[in-house]
Amino acid sequence: MAPKKLKVAVAGLGRMGKRHAMNFMNRTPRAELVAAFSPDPNELKWAKENLEPFGVTLYTDYNKMIQHPGLEAVVIGTATSVHAEESIQAMEKNLHVLCEKPLSTKVEVCKQVVAEAQKRPHLKVMCGFSRRFDASYRDAHDKVERGLIGRPSVIRSQTCDKHDPGGFFVAYAAWSGGVFVDMSIHDIDLTLWFFGDDVVLKSVSAYGIRAVQPDLAKYNDYDNAVGIVEFHDGRIAYYFCSRMMAHGQEDTTEIIGTEGKLSVNVNPQLNLVNRYHSGGITREVPHDYYGRFEMAFVEESNEFVSACLDDKPLPYKLTNAVKAVEIGSYIQEALVQEKQIRFDKNGKRIEAANL
Amino acid sequence: MAPKKLKVAVAGLGRMGKRHAMNFMNRTPRAELVAAFSPDPNELKWAKENLEPFGVTLYTDYNKMIQHPGLEAVVIGTATSVHAEESIQAMEKNLHVLCEKPLSTKVEVCKQVVAEAQKRPHLKVMCGFSRRFDASYRDAHDKVERGLIGRPSVIRSQTCDKHDPGGFFVAYAAWSGGVFVDMSIHDIDLTLWFFGDDVVLKSVSAYGIRAVQPDLAKYNDYDNAVGIVEFHDGRIAYYFCSRMMAHGQEDTTEIIGTEGKLSVNVNPQLNLVNRYHSGGITREVPHDYYGRFEMAFVEESNEFVSACLDDKPLPYKLTNAVKAVEIGSYIQEALVQEKQIRFDKNGKRIEAANL
Amino acid sequence: MAPKKLKVAVAGLGRMGKRHAMNFMNRTPRAELVAAFSPDPNELKWAKENLEPFGVTLYTDYNKMIQHPGLEAVVIGTATSVHAEESIQAMEKNLHVLCEKPLSTKVEVCKQVVAEAQKRPHLKVMCGFSRRFDASYRDAHDKVERGLIGRPSVIRSQTCDKHDPGGFFVAYAAWSGGVFVDMSIHDIDLTLWFFGDDVVLKSVSAYGIRAVQPDLAKYNDYDNAVGIVEFHDGRIAYYFCSRMMAHGQEDTTEIIGTEGKLSVNVNPQLNLVNRYHSGGITREVPHDYYGRFEMAFVEESNEFVSACLDDKPLPYKLTNAVKAVEIGSYIQEALVQEKQIRFDKNGKRIEAANL
Amino acid sequence: MAPKKLKVAVAGLGRMGKRHAMNFMNRTPRAELVAAFSPDPNELKWAKENLEPFGVTLYTDYNKMIQHPGLEAVVIGTATSVHAEESIQAMEKNLHVLCEKPLSTKVEVCKQVVAEAQKRPHLKVMCGFSRRFDASYRDAHDKVERGLIGRPSVIRSQTCDKHDPGGFFVAYAAWSGGVFVDMSIHDIDLTLWFFGDDVVLKSVSAYGIRAVQPDLAKYNDYDNAVGIVEFHDGRIAYYFCSRMMAHGQEDTTEIIGTEGKLSVNVNPQLNLVNRYHSGGITREVPHDYYGRFEMAFVEESNEFVSACLDDKPLPYKLTNAVKAVEIGSYIQEALVQEKQIRFDKNGKRIEAANL
Repeated sequence: MAPKKLKVAVAGLGRMGKRHAMNFMNRTPRAELVAAFSPDPNELKWAKENLEPFGVTLYTDYNKMIQHPGLEAVVIGTATSVHAEESIQAMEKNLHVLCEKPLSTKVEVCKQVVAEAQKRPHLKVMCGFSRRFDASYRDAHDKVERGLIGRPSVIRSQTCDKHDPGGFFVAYAAWSGGVFVDMSIHDIDLTLWFFGDDVVLKSVSAYGIRAVQPDLAKYNDYDNAVGIVEFHDGRIAYYFCSRMMAHGQEDTTEIIGTEGKLSVNVNPQLNLVNRYHSGGITREVPHDYYGRFEMAFVEESNEFVSACLDDKPLPYKLTNAVKAVEIGSYIQEALVQEKQIRFDKNGKRIEAANL
Repeated sequence: MAPKKLKVAVAGLGRMGKRHAMNFMNRTPRAELVAAFSPDPNELKWAKENLEPFGVTLYTDYNKMIQHPGLEAVVIGTATSVHAEESIQAMEKNLHVLCEKPLSTKVEVCKQVVAEAQKRPHLKVMCGFSRRFDASYRDAHDKVERGLIGRPSVIRSQTCDKHDPGGFFVAYAAWSGGVFVDMSIHDIDLTLWFFGDDVVLKSVSAYGIRAVQPDLAKYNDYDNAVGIVEFHDGRIAYYFCSRMMAHGQEDTTEIIGTEGKLSVNVNPQLNLVNRYHSGGITREVPHDYYGRFEMAFVEESNEFVSACLDDKPLPYKLTNAVKAVEIGSYIQEALVQEKQIRFDKNGKRIEAANL
Repeated sequence: MAPKKLKVAVAGLGRMGKRHAMNFMNRTPRAELVAAFSPDPNELKWAKENLEPFGVTLYTDYNKMIQHPGLEAVVIGTATSVHAEESIQAMEKNLHVLCEKPLSTKVEVCKQVVAEAQKRPHLKVMCGFSRRFDASYRDAHDKVERGLIGRPSVIRSQTCDKHDPGGFFVAYAAWSGGVFVDMSIHDIDLTLWFFGDDVVLKSVSAYGIRAVQPDLAKYNDYDNAVGIVEFHDGRIAYYFCSRMMAHGQEDTTEIIGTEGKLSVNVNPQLNLVNRYHSGGITREVPHDYYGRFEMAFVEESNEFVSACLDDKPLPYKLTNAVKAVEIGSYIQEALVQEKQIRFDKNGKRIEAANL
Repeated sequence: MAPKKLKVAVAGLGRMGKRHAMNFMNRTPRAELVAAFSPDPNELKWAKENLEPFGVTLYTDYNKMIQHPGLEAVVIGTATSVHAEESIQAMEKNLHVLCEKPLSTKVEVCKQVVAEAQKRPHLKVMCGFSRRFDASYRDAHDKVERGLIGRPSVIRSQTCDKHDPGGFFVAYAAWSGGVFVDMSIHDIDLTLWFFGDDVVLKSVSAYGIRAVQPDLAKYNDYDNAVGIVEFHDGRIAYYFCSRMMAHGQEDTTEIIGTEGKLSVNVNPQLNLVNRYHSGGITREVPHDYYGRFEMAFVEESNEFVSACLDDKPLPYKLTNAVKAVEIGSYIQEALVQEKQIRFDKNGKRIEAANL
């Protein structure tokens, strides 16, 4: 008899939802994609061609989908604004949840999701931080664990997207939570992974510019920003996020320890080809995050399924997802309000008046 | 109704056979692995744990396996010596065939496989040259097709394995056909791909040493060898194969054109991590060909299945597999006999006496 | 008749002074090293062996040296604390001056040097910023000038030294002005070069840790620090300085424009050798700044001499040297006092009380 | 009193002669350029502007120049055809000689130079192989000496020039000795350096094409060629030379040992700049050998002078220069005559008839 497969549904079939659906259907051997939900006619059209023929039931109502017979887990790839609500509704139906990052752009809402999850310790509730599943980041983390760089003390990490002249990200900024919540959250999550999730904030500062998309001013957002986070145990992380790269996606991280350093993706590359021409030697770069992290998403799917089926611990805590949003929100506030925000030894915010 | 899946069996569950079985079972959405064959008790033990529970019927007799009800295709990953025979037997049962390279170390035997395949044009018969499915090689080939380097004129290509001090390859040399048939066949196949499969041999030469495995002398084989192939249309390919690499697998190719050059894997790397330490900056390298080409094998499985199900042309001709063995055998002969072998404008061998 | 050579004296024969002496003697064809000064017996001993035999007169009194017959220019490589005074004294003797960076760690003192120089426009007075003479930085600057990256908007620049476990830099910190004045001054100078020296400060922030040299606390200094500088024209520069590198000197700069990016030294390297071994592929890194910038110092010597002899403009303004120290001092203040410092549109500091 | 300087004359002021003159005048502190010779009016015009004002006496007659009062050494950068004759004439005047490679394209003539030099052991007679003075090659050689790669067993080395569409090299081929004597001689010399100059030839083979300069057929030469040299002690060297590079100079060497590998210049680069643009990431490449080896030529000048003044051994033997031409000539013969040439254990050629 074939071993059991986890019955999974995917909510949201936009850019990333489609990929989740395909990954759970085709590249996650222990999962069976049984249902998918989207309120969007174009997404549903795609699903009729690409999912329905393979036995996936389509829904236009999220609440109906999570009552699909035998369903065991939901992957949430809808708009951020409904991540938390849908996660909680799924838990109420006793379903495991893999939710795209962030749980919410609001810390309080994130905390509600965690609270609901903590009531149901038998459920696996994970927020998808794809870089945690990337082979290079894992290798780097393993090397840190083995002590190869001494104590990690400084992290430099950036999330830099290829410039999209279409201006999609201007509208997107209306509800994204701002660049430090939307983009740098990956870098913040890496910081928690490499420094430990018990680090205590000491201060944050940030600066941004609108170099190519002045309309971002409408939403108090920026197309390039730099932020620094200081922790009370004598560590620093600094972040750069940009939507202005000409060449493609460039997500780079350095972990600088007392006895050595590790870098991830200092030389971005699409593949192993170099072209030699009269202007020099050129290599191409992935166009977007999926070009860089495709296999990490596949690994994410498989590990989530394995944790559900085998009742194994998830690779990281759900509370990290809250902490990452919290730190991101502070940095975003520092950015928008042009001020430094400081915290006491317990991580409690010291109001500006106290400076 | 779910679209049809191709029912596939895998023959041979050794190092590569296992991988084929897992790839067809888990990473080839349009395939269904229904059967597997191995005469080896250890391999069967592995199959009982890893294949049987998922509905794969195990066989200890190849001929019985190819009569498995509903079977449509066979993947042959057994010892090279039975590749051809098993391929022909499968065709006789009206099965599509994906056979590991080489079809045989003997050109005549390869030709028999081709002859049998030509009798059954409705069958897809493919010899697995993994590099043809690698994203980097494909990008390079696409760039050549787009004219980015002018006319490809010189190819340098190497297959270099990590040194295995255990001496496995000494025994293996007894029946491998020699390094140019066993290792460089990939480089030769790439040459046919980049130069065109209608190139006509003008001469071959080769030289080898036994630097770390003197026992290879027993089998007239070498652990490092260099060969040059000259073609009548004014092109040259030169190859290096080695089993002596300290650092890992290093399969590198340069395609040198009249207006530019492309390189593939000039900087071998396991992943995107660099380690900075007191001795400098270090990156790791894949330990073996599967570390380098894993995703190419997955792509190979999927494209083979797609060709079978949709009756689409295979990505390359079976006759190339014969030509690659033929050229490899000539180079091996030049190597072992320490002579240059020349060919007339029709590719007909000019005997040494005619020099 | 041989063309005229510039008669040069070098003051200070410590680590960098020795190199200047040798460069002006041997690698600056249009200069003649005629005198050298050091109060230090060990340095004088070295000079007796290495300079005196070649006709260089040695002095233990700076004031006497600058009265050396026929002397035309002085290169000042003494301790930072006397840079300004010695520069002014040299100008008073009508001598051209090449002074090691910084003119002083105090902005007011730097300004005095500039004021004295402005009284004597026929004299060439230059503060040595070696990176301005480096072929890679010049190529990058030229590419920016040619518009290849659009408008430079963000600069990331770091000065990272190999860790010296001897603790030399603890004592040195007593009078160095702090890491942002001592180390990052190069990065700040590059910012003025790439952004234009008319940029107006908007704010500065900085954070530091003492990860390997806790004794730096005595001098309010740090072994790793990150700083951000915001300018009123919508540009940002951010800096990292560290004395903790295990692998060697790593001075890296990225200039990020609206239409492209340039990097300098993203892959540090001692030379063009890679070593392939069982642990991977390793390249070495220069041990110190001179290993990285030796040829830039030679170029600096030659261009200074050429400006003096041919009465050509110096490659950059002396006032930049003041501005770099000024910005560095603000960042250092922000670092030590753990606060953000803000400036109005005229660059006038807004006191914290006004925040 | 200033230490003695070596009085040097340069013969030939063409492309490389000019550079030698400038290097000996300005970048070789222990040398004094006192004389220069050229029969060419344009070269003399250049010399009148660039050398004469600095006290260099110009000659249009080589024999007169070598009688210049006090002259101690001659640097020969004239046409290859007169290298040997001029070297011998200089020795007859008791002058040290640094002669550009090759001594001659004819082995017998090279041997005459060596014979003359051997009669005068007090003279330093060196043939300039610039790569021997390059920091990267020296580092690689040092690592080999330290045993880091075990026994060097295979060398891959290439000399690849940027394509010059002007066709200069067609005329040049008339007297260059052919690509393996003209270009690969550097790679052959490196082989003698890394393998030892006592290696004994076992066989040579070579193949060439005319991909961009068909007119080379007039002179029996090629624009791309590959050669293999086998030695009797179980080692192989293989060479690629090309005049067809679109991107610039690419002289790459790999030394492959039983326990590791070293590469030199696997990633050619003009400097440390990378440009990131919509097509990817690009670095530039030196346009010619001088862009790659400029500092090696400076080092060569200085070491030659030091050997002369201090009566120290030269860094390598003059006989190597003969052996390199000898091997190069054999490879060129194999190339042109399309045959393999074999040698017995004493290195004595085995005629084709004996095959």
